[in-house]
Amino acid sequence: MKKNNSFAALFIQEAIGLSQEKMSQGQGGPFGAVVVKEGKIISRGWNQVTSINDPTAHAEIVAIREACRILETFHLNGCEIYTNCEPCPMCLGAIYWARIKAVYYANTRHDAAGIGFDDEFIYREMAMPLSERTVKMTHLPSEEALFVFEKWAQKDNRIEY
Amino acid sequence: MKKNNSFAALFIQEAIGLSQEKMSQGQGGPFGAVVVKEGKIISRGWNQVTSINDPTAHAEIVAIREACRILETFHLNGCEIYTNCEPCPMCLGAIYWARIKAVYYANTRHDAAGIGFDDEFIYREMAMPLSERTVKMTHLPSEEALFVFEKWAQKDNRIEY
Repeated sequence: MKKNNSFAALFIQEAIGLSQEKMSQGQGGPFGAVVVKEGKIISRGWNQVTSINDPTAHAEIVAIREACRILETFHLNGCEIYTNCEPCPMCLGAIYWARIKAVYYANTRHDAAGIGFDDEFIYREMAMPLSERTVKMTHLPSEEALFVFEKWAQKDNRIEY
Repeated sequence: MKKNNSFAALFIQEAIGLSQEKMSQGQGGPFGAVVVKEGKIISRGWNQVTSINDPTAHAEIVAIREACRILETFHLNGCEIYTNCEPCPMCLGAIYWARIKAVYYANTRHDAAGIGFDDEFIYREMAMPLSERTVKMTHLPSEEALFVFEKWAQKDNRIEY
């Protein structure tokens, strides 16, 4: 247990170090993350939203994409992610899709809100009925769209994820 | 109003067409999306999770990244997104970060659940207290992590997003 805790402290330290270093270099917001498997760092990620013009280039998303590239897989079973801040809803969604089962984080969504980031706001929006969100959600039901879903369900050679 | 509706029908049709075409080609799940600005399609996206080993390569994320690349910006103000299915929490998060203000969708998260996708499950998880989620969330508070956030708040040349 003690051993596990000191490993966790090491990896979270790496994520915090990235948040500091890459922010100083002007790569984006103060966020860093590492993906770990069996006690080893597989990949590192840091926020690059403003430097590469990609609003999805959050630290966790970058680290997950890189880990998948390195491990040649679309599921990171058996991996953990360490991040200097509680993942935003986008990154948490990516963590679920990647099948990562454990998240270690230092700062919270409230700390992020305190320096002007929208994480907390987006969490609130996400839990709202679609009609009450600030983003206007318009449902255009389509028989054809449902038919494509049925084709997927019937597809013999589909790869599930 | 009638004109707007017929435009919407056209763009949603494009998204549905992509979901069908790219699924048939084995690129990934049955999902397509287009980003539209001032009545013109800026970018197209489709699910590529299993073909490029990227769990974040959902249709909306791909379309948003591509629109940002083309428009050379990290904010898609004035853009709308059309998708064959209600965005999952990851993609909805990306829509908020990209400052897209309107989403048009055909199938719902319930339709997605009906063919085995986790969208609905992840929405439920997201709204839960951190301690009750299936992904284990461990808070490791750190003075140093908070200090990096303070440095961001004090940074003169920071680019906000």
